[in-house]
Amino acid sequence: MRTQVAIIGGGPSGLLLAQLLHRHGIDSVVLERKTKDYVLSRIRAGVLEQGLVQLMEQAGCADRLRSKGHVHDGTLIAYGDTMFRLDFTDLTGTPVIVYGQTEVTRDLYAAREAAGGPIEFEVEDVTIHDADTDSPHVTYNVGGEPRRIDCDFIAGCDGFHGVSRQAIPLTIRREYEKVYPFGWLGVLSETPPVNSELIYANSPRGFALCSMRSDTLSRYYIQCSLSDKPEDWTDAAFWQELKRRIPPDQAERLVTGPSIEKSIAPLRSFVTEPMRWGRLFLCGDAAHIVPPTGAKGLNTAASDVHYLFTGLRQFYDTGATDGIDSYSAKALARVWKVERFSWWFSSLMHRYPDQSDFDLRIQIAELEFLRTNRAAQQAMAENYVGLPY
Amino acid sequence: MRTQVAIIGGGPSGLLLAQLLHRHGIDSVVLERKTKDYVLSRIRAGVLEQGLVQLMEQAGCADRLRSKGHVHDGTLIAYGDTMFRLDFTDLTGTPVIVYGQTEVTRDLYAAREAAGGPIEFEVEDVTIHDADTDSPHVTYNVGGEPRRIDCDFIAGCDGFHGVSRQAIPLTIRREYEKVYPFGWLGVLSETPPVNSELIYANSPRGFALCSMRSDTLSRYYIQCSLSDKPEDWTDAAFWQELKRRIPPDQAERLVTGPSIEKSIAPLRSFVTEPMRWGRLFLCGDAAHIVPPTGAKGLNTAASDVHYLFTGLRQFYDTGATDGIDSYSAKALARVWKVERFSWWFSSLMHRYPDQSDFDLRIQIAELEFLRTNRAAQQAMAENYVGLPY
Repeated sequence: MRTQVAIIGGGPSGLLLAQLLHRHGIDSVVLERKTKDYVLSRIRAGVLEQGLVQLMEQAGCADRLRSKGHVHDGTLIAYGDTMFRLDFTDLTGTPVIVYGQTEVTRDLYAAREAAGGPIEFEVEDVTIHDADTDSPHVTYNVGGEPRRIDCDFIAGCDGFHGVSRQAIPLTIRREYEKVYPFGWLGVLSETPPVNSELIYANSPRGFALCSMRSDTLSRYYIQCSLSDKPEDWTDAAFWQELKRRIPPDQAERLVTGPSIEKSIAPLRSFVTEPMRWGRLFLCGDAAHIVPPTGAKGLNTAASDVHYLFTGLRQFYDTGATDGIDSYSAKALARVWKVERFSWWFSSLMHRYPDQSDFDLRIQIAELEFLRTNRAAQQAMAENYVGLPY
Repeated sequence: MRTQVAIIGGGPSGLLLAQLLHRHGIDSVVLERKTKDYVLSRIRAGVLEQGLVQLMEQAGCADRLRSKGHVHDGTLIAYGDTMFRLDFTDLTGTPVIVYGQTEVTRDLYAAREAAGGPIEFEVEDVTIHDADTDSPHVTYNVGGEPRRIDCDFIAGCDGFHGVSRQAIPLTIRREYEKVYPFGWLGVLSETPPVNSELIYANSPRGFALCSMRSDTLSRYYIQCSLSDKPEDWTDAAFWQELKRRIPPDQAERLVTGPSIEKSIAPLRSFVTEPMRWGRLFLCGDAAHIVPPTGAKGLNTAASDVHYLFTGLRQFYDTGATDGIDSYSAKALARVWKVERFSWWFSSLMHRYPDQSDFDLRIQIAELEFLRTNRAAQQAMAENYVGLPY
């Protein structure tokens, strides 16, 4: 088989890239290790920056997002007995859209299927060949049958555990990592959200986040120990702990119900450099991970897709390579700013096992400064709604 | 002897308070453990916030500061091969004044002497009595002769190592501290400053600061090991190391010369709470220490003096105690913001022995964000020129 761009990974970044390329007349094949149902069952964040929304428009996939997504003009931040609001629209002119990553992926699959674009599911032993030449190819198996795709370019959209990053030799690749000493226990429940906006809470008992997917579907998180397991936490224990970490007036009106999903995620910051090796380009989690505080994972994958799509389009339109040549530097410049923001917001909101009393007071002083200083609010809001591409 | 306010400590905060009280007709006695010459020989920072300048005006001590001080509209921040400028006046409408703390103290002594206000030098065994009653008094010796001052109030302006803080019982007192894993090696030299504005440099070899006291007197600092001693560093070695840490074009024009003072200071963040116990009020370093990055020590002492003077004046004018009753809470609210800023600016600019590659890249990403984001610049500048009292 031959295609212009082989896309490894059928998550939202691979599919978004595929759809943008398709609308520009550039062919691609998407390879996915799992089934479509499996991909769509993964629960991820649901706060979309305008940049991602615009890419979804460009991809022709924004109709449901526009009709079902919720515009959030601000967010609530709680600490001690204090809760304050950051008004993103007032501070930056831009809101965010609350719309689950699962829904984004669903919309992209629908578009891919409507366009008849090829996706291979349940591929095994994906191997990248000759990425540092002008004739790369990818081999893999489907149901034990070996296959091969020859292509112009390979987009590695296969996440942190994928093969794409590993294909870049260690002599060239440099990795940066920070592992946080806690996890997030997340619960999805078919209950109305406690508040119309997200609540990020720094409580003496640890971080909590009240989030949502829709008017009837809530997503709540509490900071937990890395040694905790989801089965250690009954629904009752989760709700009780959540109520103790959010302001009393919010806890009072919290509607609880059975969890329909419960899981623990570790928090990690990770960046690999470079994001391009020859004709292989890494996008999203394949190249970088952020802790979930601030919901930058999918949004940052989208900015990678933007830079890569822009470079590939230029190449196919004109033959010029400066877009693809500058891909890694451009993507990484924004990635590091997002890494900084996600690290900062995580550091601000969580309790750390080794935190001294001084460290704790500094954290509260920073929250107090953010509550009272408009410039600090604006810097935060500009990051939260998404730095420009 | 009897006075209205006994002031322990003849540094700038004690003298500023004495002079403000004097101009309002309130008597005080200043007790100083050292000689005047010793106090005036102490080299400290020299960047004054507008709040301090205004207090010096109120104290009638701002003439020399106005004529000899240098207005600085901005500062330079360097990292890697990049140097950028923060324009304080553009960002906040307010510049800072470069004028040595030694000069501030000299002006305050001149005013105190002109006013004939009592200062006792070389006092020993200063002891605070009955601070938690309405009749406090202070005992001390001068030349072996015991003395006693009865007073309405005691202002503890005697620095980190003074007796005032220790007079507050440990059952009431709470202390917060962070010690940084490096020091500052400082050199004073009779050379023209390398630049008309300060340069803060984050170099791979560690932090450096190019500062000044006047057109002919420069003050330079480099981050050093805590185990270093000033005598380990020849002048030649100091200048060579400084040149390697600042941008090449600045290093080229650096004028070197013999050091007239060379010393190493540790970096510490420290806060004690409360800042008031009965009729004893702590001001400045007696209650809090900041690392010198950003020059907040004297400026924060000045904001304490402002709150205390305001409370005492109200008490003597009207008998109302709400100003003195709220002193600790008001002073500490600002102190913690300043502690946060000084910790943040120190964290941003120094290399840490245990810094991972990820931490280092986050530091550079934060500098990059500060270089390119106006809201971040404004938040920084508002802190640098001084948060409102």
